[in-house]
Amino acid sequence: MKKIIIINGPNLNLLGKRETDIYGDMSFTEFFEEMKDIYSDDVHLSYFQSNVEGELIDKIQEVGFKYDGILLNAGGYTHTSVAIRDAIAAIKTPVIEIHISNIYAREEFRHQSMISGVCKGIIAGFGLDSYVLGLDSLLS
Amino acid sequence: MKKIIIINGPNLNLLGKRETDIYGDMSFTEFFEEMKDIYSDDVHLSYFQSNVEGELIDKIQEVGFKYDGILLNAGGYTHTSVAIRDAIAAIKTPVIEIHISNIYAREEFRHQSMISGVCKGIIAGFGLDSYVLGLDSLLS
Amino acid sequence: MKKIIIINGPNLNLLGKRETDIYGDMSFTEFFEEMKDIYSDDVHLSYFQSNVEGELIDKIQEVGFKYDGILLNAGGYTHTSVAIRDAIAAIKTPVIEIHISNIYAREEFRHQSMISGVCKGIIAGFGLDSYVLGLDSLLS
Amino acid sequence: MKKIIIINGPNLNLLGKRETDIYGDMSFTEFFEEMKDIYSDDVHLSYFQSNVEGELIDKIQEVGFKYDGILLNAGGYTHTSVAIRDAIAAIKTPVIEIHISNIYAREEFRHQSMISGVCKGIIAGFGLDSYVLGLDSLLS
Amino acid sequence: MKKIIIINGPNLNLLGKRETDIYGDMSFTEFFEEMKDIYSDDVHLSYFQSNVEGELIDKIQEVGFKYDGILLNAGGYTHTSVAIRDAIAAIKTPVIEIHISNIYAREEFRHQSMISGVCKGIIAGFGLDSYVLGLDSLLS
Amino acid sequence: MKKIIIINGPNLNLLGKRETDIYGDMSFTEFFEEMKDIYSDDVHLSYFQSNVEGELIDKIQEVGFKYDGILLNAGGYTHTSVAIRDAIAAIKTPVIEIHISNIYAREEFRHQSMISGVCKGIIAGFGLDSYVLGLDSLLS
Amino acid sequence: MKKIIIINGPNLNLLGKRETDIYGDMSFTEFFEEMKDIYSDDVHLSYFQSNVEGELIDKIQEVGFKYDGILLNAGGYTHTSVAIRDAIAAIKTPVIEIHISNIYAREEFRHQSMISGVCKGIIAGFGLDSYVLGLDSLLS
Amino acid sequence: MKKIIIINGPNLNLLGKRETDIYGDMSFTEFFEEMKDIYSDDVHLSYFQSNVEGELIDKIQEVGFKYDGILLNAGGYTHTSVAIRDAIAAIKTPVIEIHISNIYAREEFRHQSMISGVCKGIIAGFGLDSYVLGLDSLLS
Amino acid sequence: MKKIIIINGPNLNLLGKRETDIYGDMSFTEFFEEMKDIYSDDVHLSYFQSNVEGELIDKIQEVGFKYDGILLNAGGYTHTSVAIRDAIAAIKTPVIEIHISNIYAREEFRHQSMISGVCKGIIAGFGLDSYVLGLDSLLS
Amino acid sequence: MKKIIIINGPNLNLLGKRETDIYGDMSFTEFFEEMKDIYSDDVHLSYFQSNVEGELIDKIQEVGFKYDGILLNAGGYTHTSVAIRDAIAAIKTPVIEIHISNIYAREEFRHQSMISGVCKGIIAGFGLDSYVLGLDSLLS
Amino acid sequence: MKKIIIINGPNLNLLGKRETDIYGDMSFTEFFEEMKDIYSDDVHLSYFQSNVEGELIDKIQEVGFKYDGILLNAGGYTHTSVAIRDAIAAIKTPVIEIHISNIYAREEFRHQSMISGVCKGIIAGFGLDSYVLGLDSLLS
Amino acid sequence: MKKIIIINGPNLNLLGKRETDIYGDMSFTEFFEEMKDIYSDDVHLSYFQSNVEGELIDKIQEVGFKYDGILLNAGGYTHTSVAIRDAIAAIKTPVIEIHISNIYAREEFRHQSMISGVCKGIIAGFGLDSYVLGLDSLLS
Repeated sequence: MKKIIIINGPNLNLLGKRETDIYGDMSFTEFFEEMKDIYSDDVHLSYFQSNVEGELIDKIQEVGFKYDGILLNAGGYTHTSVAIRDAIAAIKTPVIEIHISNIYAREEFRHQSMISGVCKGIIAGFGLDSYVLGLDSLLS
Repeated sequence: MKKIIIINGPNLNLLGKRETDIYGDMSFTEFFEEMKDIYSDDVHLSYFQSNVEGELIDKIQEVGFKYDGILLNAGGYTHTSVAIRDAIAAIKTPVIEIHISNIYAREEFRHQSMISGVCKGIIAGFGLDSYVLGLDSLLS
Repeated sequence: MKKIIIINGPNLNLLGKRETDIYGDMSFTEFFEEMKDIYSDDVHLSYFQSNVEGELIDKIQEVGFKYDGILLNAGGYTHTSVAIRDAIAAIKTPVIEIHISNIYAREEFRHQSMISGVCKGIIAGFGLDSYVLGLDSLLS
Repeated sequence: MKKIIIINGPNLNLLGKRETDIYGDMSFTEFFEEMKDIYSDDVHLSYFQSNVEGELIDKIQEVGFKYDGILLNAGGYTHTSVAIRDAIAAIKTPVIEIHISNIYAREEFRHQSMISGVCKGIIAGFGLDSYVLGLDSLLS
Repeated sequence: MKKIIIINGPNLNLLGKRETDIYGDMSFTEFFEEMKDIYSDDVHLSYFQSNVEGELIDKIQEVGFKYDGILLNAGGYTHTSVAIRDAIAAIKTPVIEIHISNIYAREEFRHQSMISGVCKGIIAGFGLDSYVLGLDSLLS
Repeated sequence: MKKIIIINGPNLNLLGKRETDIYGDMSFTEFFEEMKDIYSDDVHLSYFQSNVEGELIDKIQEVGFKYDGILLNAGGYTHTSVAIRDAIAAIKTPVIEIHISNIYAREEFRHQSMISGVCKGIIAGFGLDSYVLGLDSLLS
Repeated sequence: MKKIIIINGPNLNLLGKRETDIYGDMSFTEFFEEMKDIYSDDVHLSYFQSNVEGELIDKIQEVGFKYDGILLNAGGYTHTSVAIRDAIAAIKTPVIEIHISNIYAREEFRHQSMISGVCKGIIAGFGLDSYVLGLDSLLS
Repeated sequence: MKKIIIINGPNLNLLGKRETDIYGDMSFTEFFEEMKDIYSDDVHLSYFQSNVEGELIDKIQEVGFKYDGILLNAGGYTHTSVAIRDAIAAIKTPVIEIHISNIYAREEFRHQSMISGVCKGIIAGFGLDSYVLGLDSLLS
Repeated sequence: MKKIIIINGPNLNLLGKRETDIYGDMSFTEFFEEMKDIYSDDVHLSYFQSNVEGELIDKIQEVGFKYDGILLNAGGYTHTSVAIRDAIAAIKTPVIEIHISNIYAREEFRHQSMISGVCKGIIAGFGLDSYVLGLDSLLS
Repeated sequence: MKKIIIINGPNLNLLGKRETDIYGDMSFTEFFEEMKDIYSDDVHLSYFQSNVEGELIDKIQEVGFKYDGILLNAGGYTHTSVAIRDAIAAIKTPVIEIHISNIYAREEFRHQSMISGVCKGIIAGFGLDSYVLGLDSLLS
Repeated sequence: MKKIIIINGPNLNLLGKRETDIYGDMSFTEFFEEMKDIYSDDVHLSYFQSNVEGELIDKIQEVGFKYDGILLNAGGYTHTSVAIRDAIAAIKTPVIEIHISNIYAREEFRHQSMISGVCKGIIAGFGLDSYVLGLDSLLS
Repeated sequence: MKKIIIINGPNLNLLGKRETDIYGDMSFTEFFEEMKDIYSDDVHLSYFQSNVEGELIDKIQEVGFKYDGILLNAGGYTHTSVAIRDAIAAIKTPVIEIHISNIYAREEFRHQSMISGVCKGIIAGFGLDSYVLGLDSLLS
């Protein structure tokens, strides 16, 4: 059975609580449990969140030579982090870049991603379904 | 049954023939027929390709008040066309922006999309599977 | 009697249907018929619309040595088309650049016009009246 | 009867004297008297000119809650004045931006207008007729 | 005998008629017939012109796996078309970029070519002789 | 007793009348009288407003070697005036830059201040309280 | 009694020790104790400092739905952190941006703040008094 | 006898009082009187100073068709004023741009002059001698 | 005996494992032990690595008033961290910027270092020898 | 008989030795002798190479009023030399800009030529044949 | 008697021969002899010209610790040479930057001078009189 | 025994004489003799300096296929010379870029090096020791 991890960056722990008009009102852990149930036959799915850039890198390094895929929503670090980019480039596991909202329909500074260039694929704008689509892409 | 159309822009008719290391060696029509078969119970799927920017706009306008979804790979027009952007903004049908390759891992001028801001979501980098993921997103 | 043509670019055929808060709810052909009636004593007024950049150029070339004036609303091509600019520079007939909305009050990428520099004059922001004012400018 | 004012910015008092190949050889006051005569049945037309940015703002404020329209040719301040922009945004009277020459066919620094975004409409390039067209737009 | 095609983009059909101080007063078809005669022993020379970006792409694709060379003067699309660039990159036939005038001695926006990077060579500034030099380069 | 002056730039005389959703509905003179009363034991407070850039400079020069502090809200000149910057740099009296609204949350062109670099401190975004805080900073 | 927290970012723990000509020679904890004493009747004041961007976000989230105000000096993260910006936008508690020095009088890269746009107000340049003014603004 | 005027812009009335390390400690009027004496046989020399941009334009217009030369030190308006540039371009009298300090050795924003392009010559960096050199250039 | 510390930033813990064509296949700890042995008579050498920007700052602060030198390879934070720059500027110990690869021969975004300006010297491109050269520079 | 000179700039003396995958393995002098033989009936052909910018200018000046044409490959100075541009503009002899490789398909900084604007024509990308084509252009 | 040298950069040896509408038709050596005669009582005047950047630097270094002044017209190197800038900064003799034409009224790339920042003063636009004014400035 | 050359660019012959606060007061030849003595057993060390860009290229070419290493301090040409970059790329001998001062702590235009991308390594900021470290790097 494949091992896949969802890694969420800063402020994604506030989902369901924060700007609900943009991000919806379901908390990520509720969503994750549902998702895990649905896919429980096909994949060993785990979850990690941190607001600390370096802890995201620690986790990417830790799973990056053992897991079959990473769904990474780097949140605000998407647009600024060379260090996360380097971590992704350094590992073997393919990484899918995930965004809940359509970052290209928001402020100018969200239009540039430092990590897209080293990810396998990008999925943005489908709400929480972005994660489901990302998972499907890794399973197909 | 939902009506969904795939609209492909310039040079995508060369798929399977053009730069096969980037785009793979299956022609799009072969791929489309397979995809249509698999989804035949759920969706009425059609296909349109043109190298002419204005014909893409004509088609977007034509289906844009009748269909349930558009999977749009605008090819090279992605990076330059305000006119296609305007067409998408003008219609009611949701549009998903699709790219076969990871455009953010290629030349600088491919990093900017004129249409992302008015699409519902973006899927890039999964080869022809990008279309499948896009279709799934419209069906879920 | 003077011969004047209105040439409309991409998506202007959707007028009355598209983003009615910005563009109003009258279709362009209704408006054109009214306008033609009012001015029927002074001018032979014709109308052409296409979503295809090259067809707009074809038409500009066709009338550009025979007509007395062109009212050109190049729509989204306004901001990107060197080719339409070249067509205008190549002909003898004076061209008035027309915009329904105030393009300078919208997105940044609409603030630059590739064609203003070769047009005789610019009229923007008066709704469909922009065409009427443009026609008056050619008749005075 | 409507009350409309023409407000002219710096150096427009030199009209008829200054660079006559660009601006023509009629003085603005001559032109204004003619214009006033022609429209005397429909509109109470007045005129103000100053080379001082702040006096233009004073006048805009003074008439901006009482008049029915302002035809503003801000001259060189067009390209630099946030303060005039703020004055226009602050008042109730609609403002039409007027230019005698086609500013987009001149030096690069004249292509940007600080005030277009807050004006109702823009008319440029028709010589002194730009004022007439602007007046028509306010009367229609 | 080699098969070579000249593909001309927008407004080049006006040659001999348009801005004759820049482009000379010979029409392109006259020039083409002369050129064809001179080279009739060495090469099968054909000619295509369109104002429509997508039709240029259609033609490039059509000849791009069968001909021995393309002399491409993309006119105004030179500076804006990612789609034509992609077409050139997608085919096997070598493409020579041709310009009649010295584009680097004209407006700033003509200094950048979107297609130079994927063409075999560039020839600019020799009037209609640019085509002759281009043909020579393909024959040597 | 300290002598402190509030100098207000263009359009701030419209306070209470202009865009009341951004600036509130109290006129500045009402506010000033209240403020003067409250601080009447500690400070001799005066007030000057002009829409003319040069008159603001005149006043800055006049008080700049005699007063103990200036609270300067340069309005739209904030973003463009090298001349006011030079006036501030030329005098001895410390200047506090004041803004009623959060200029950094508004249009891009309001994010840059030409005068911040030569002011002692900056206070922005607290409505009319920005003046009170500024006064406190000069008194402490 | 209101609950307000001062959150200090990287290197502000060195205050009194680091570049004393810019920042003064009082340590922040000494200053904080004094400030707490003075305001002890009006406000429950607490303090948090970290050099870790993510820990600042953790704290902003923790207090952001419970406290009445945050005085945030994000130090060097001010100019680079989209993630802190997102945290501020996500919470309910108003945030005041504080800087000890006048950042606009220092290096170019300090002139841009990523967080100003989502803060309620900005106070910069008054030394440690910037915190006092910020506190006053929250209490008034 | 030639008629020449020195026109000084904002803050130059503070000479001898303001930043004496950059500008020296002689007031401009003292200097002007000396200069007038020395040149009294050759030229009728007059002087005008204003902090108001529009008054500088008024004066340029007033003398610009009657005098033999203008020595213009536009101070801070040098770097921002399109309106003064237009005034210079509109008149017949030659204008020499004068700066006391070497503006190119100061802040970046002082390196660009809006008026140099329409002045006859530029003299900068020689202290008050810049005026003397400018006068000599007009007399030779 | 001098006390010197090597501080390594994000992803440098993967050395020997990550992109071995760029970084070589020796792990840093192996390398460090060898280096420590060789220099054991001259210097007390210690080592710290973290993926967390703030922990790097903590360590820089901790040693920055006690050690004789820091060899800092800030990895991906080199190009983005104002906060690390501030930490270096705040301490007394000289810092040498170290890079294993030649960052100027890689992607554009690696050409700019936020920290070079406050380091004593820069050594880049010599593989692990960059550290040895850096150490020599501190000992000489 | 026409007198034409080939002037080669820096590093072109290494041809055949330097980066042979880009520039081929024939030395320029061998190539020049062949070329000279072939054209010996039509043209007096000479050759000059220098790595010194000023010596290239000396030679351009020397031949620039006596020869019938210059084929100039300015090598690395192409992208930086205003002085060579001025030399070309100063002389009477027409200059053809020559490049062996397609400079537009290489690094960004090679896309801009300082000299194209003052050359008669540009030929790039045909290997050593670029010189032959250039010579043909001067002879036709 | 003061020792002053005029140093002229590339292409200034063509004066009187080159673009006479811009530079006039007197050769520099003729002009220099006249100038030398007139000033023979006050100054020992010498002259040096080279097209080679490095020879200009050699000369600047040679005279830079012995002469009383340098009048430097660096020609095309003005806009590109960091090396000449460094030479000027390295010497003790004051340098006056001289230009015959008004470089700010010409092409954009001539508006920036690399050397102005380290020169004592700048004189531009007075034809050959620029040298006379420069000499006067050194003698006064 | 290895053959290594130090190549110094413009103005480095002034060392010990020029801006001694930045560069120290030892002349380079004194320093070179000391260095040569110390390393006389290990390496045949030679030295070349020129202010002429092309002579530096000549020397790089001359030694570039025979020597074991080049220590290159290109002085002011570092920031502007594509031609020197091309010379380094063309040769076989490894080149180390050397700077005495920390160029990244100086003016903005010194932050970019045109040659770093083709050098093996970079050493900057250690005074004359930069050369020693560079030599060590070539010997290890």
